[in-house]
Amino acid sequence: MKRVEQLKPHEKLAAVLADDMAAVNVLIRERMVSEHAPRIPEVTSHLVEAGGKRLRPLLTLAAARMCGYEGPYHVHLAATVEFIHTATLLHDDVVDESAKRRGRPTANLLWDNKSSVLVGDYLFSRSFQLMVETGSLRVLDILANASATMAEGEVLQMTAASDLATDEAIYLQVVRGKTAALFSAATQVGGVIAGKDESITKALYDFGDALGISFQIVDDLLDYGGVMASLGKNTGDDFRERKLTLPVIKAVAKGDEEEYAFWNRTIEKGRQKDGDLEHAMALLNKHDVLEETRQEALKWAETAKAALAKLPEHELRDLLADVADFVVSRVV
Amino acid sequence: MKRVEQLKPHEKLAAVLADDMAAVNVLIRERMVSEHAPRIPEVTSHLVEAGGKRLRPLLTLAAARMCGYEGPYHVHLAATVEFIHTATLLHDDVVDESAKRRGRPTANLLWDNKSSVLVGDYLFSRSFQLMVETGSLRVLDILANASATMAEGEVLQMTAASDLATDEAIYLQVVRGKTAALFSAATQVGGVIAGKDESITKALYDFGDALGISFQIVDDLLDYGGVMASLGKNTGDDFRERKLTLPVIKAVAKGDEEEYAFWNRTIEKGRQKDGDLEHAMALLNKHDVLEETRQEALKWAETAKAALAKLPEHELRDLLADVADFVVSRVV
Repeated sequence: MKRVEQLKPHEKLAAVLADDMAAVNVLIRERMVSEHAPRIPEVTSHLVEAGGKRLRPLLTLAAARMCGYEGPYHVHLAATVEFIHTATLLHDDVVDESAKRRGRPTANLLWDNKSSVLVGDYLFSRSFQLMVETGSLRVLDILANASATMAEGEVLQMTAASDLATDEAIYLQVVRGKTAALFSAATQVGGVIAGKDESITKALYDFGDALGISFQIVDDLLDYGGVMASLGKNTGDDFRERKLTLPVIKAVAKGDEEEYAFWNRTIEKGRQKDGDLEHAMALLNKHDVLEETRQEALKWAETAKAALAKLPEHELRDLLADVADFVVSRVV
Repeated sequence: MKRVEQLKPHEKLAAVLADDMAAVNVLIRERMVSEHAPRIPEVTSHLVEAGGKRLRPLLTLAAARMCGYEGPYHVHLAATVEFIHTATLLHDDVVDESAKRRGRPTANLLWDNKSSVLVGDYLFSRSFQLMVETGSLRVLDILANASATMAEGEVLQMTAASDLATDEAIYLQVVRGKTAALFSAATQVGGVIAGKDESITKALYDFGDALGISFQIVDDLLDYGGVMASLGKNTGDDFRERKLTLPVIKAVAKGDEEEYAFWNRTIEKGRQKDGDLEHAMALLNKHDVLEETRQEALKWAETAKAALAKLPEHELRDLLADVADFVVSRVV
């Protein structure tokens, strides 16, 4: 066992919220069962038991506890958020034709696209049942809006990702959809279920939103090996999949005509050849856009912490601030 | 223009509810728009404008009006039901790898699987927003449960469809999931939004459930050309796709060892060759299972009308009874 001071911030959060999280895990296992269709728990447990960090349900639990909530429904909402996340992963893997997720073969590879689509739909509907059980229309409203933003962001990414006209504003919309919408809903509903007023729930929303954006920017940066762009076996996926992310958007904006032609060929037209990824890395380094991207992630982490500062003092509040710092520390 | 007496029952229903239905169509067009992702209305309108019968939203409107509802939310619920149906069709076409739907190329063929999966998700989330706007937790509960039943039914169909051990009870579960769950939710929420008590909303549920089952059995029967099984260009899809439906389930139960071997090879193992469909048809005729299947559909139509009889007299109630008769008349 690790000593507490050796734990990373999200691990400390998990340790403090261990009892709640155990209840969430029980509820998740209970609700992913289907009496009639054994394929459902097979597919779901493949993903759910793969050992994700469970960051989103932890955010909900932390927000609710920070707001003094003593009822049972923060557990339902945490499970809701994890089910929505898992459903999204299943559908994403079909959309991206991915082969690996969390270090294991994806469900669409182990079973088929059908299973991923339909089990994803099943988890969405289960998450919907869980949130209805809370009896809070405000919670339902928040999660319905988050779902729409998520789906819209995914479609936007599909159509905009390989288009060199995509600018930082569109990138931000995509990131809000694919990542931040669920983070902000996860934190906000924690406050709502605790009966807190708008000033508190707005701060929780802002924290989740900024944390999610920071988290996704860091993810996109790590896809190019972090600030010291270096080729590793896990780098360059976005380039190969022709996904315009913040580093490339910045590099395109700073590049000359010849560079534009390079990005046009490799990303927009998708005609890639040996050495292209290395050349892309060289351009990112030349324009110093990886450091700029890191600064952007840092800025959002600061925004997240500023939102937290509007909340009353609490041990969990400080842990959440540490999580915001830690997210960005991954790319230093 | 047709004279009223020439109209089919669901056309009469549409005529009587024309104003409400116009409001539903306005709401559908309004809500399928996405500011940021033009692909969404492209895909959706391809399907929504293709001229389905809009039977499900008509059921909701009829139920609400029959119960004396005068508020605005039956329109939201009718649009909700149509969005859920459209989302399901988009996902089904990916799952079935279909090429045609309502006489037109499917969205997954015109665009791609990605668009169908993600736009389907978008429509689910939009339907969710619409139902939250009604402010009725009971409505949300009903639709959440229907969604779960639908998703479970789809998964069950995927795993059970080619398994000769599938019996009539499992078939009924699949049919309830893929068709009846949305029919029964559509009718039930009409009564709930009108504030009717359990005796009325239960009768509305029972009507939708039985109508949906009858509707799907007829659909499965028509796939073999109706009672006088005859090969047409639209027949035999279920056989080719190795989907066990009621006629074949009945034939398998009545067949001898040699026939079992035939069904085992063609449906369970999927090794089909020229002349197999004709042989399958001959077996269905030999055992008279198409007529038995029609009787089953008739029985469910009677159950549907018996449920209606528990409701107060109303012009719309009589039209709904005619719809139940008409559904089965397609296979006489």
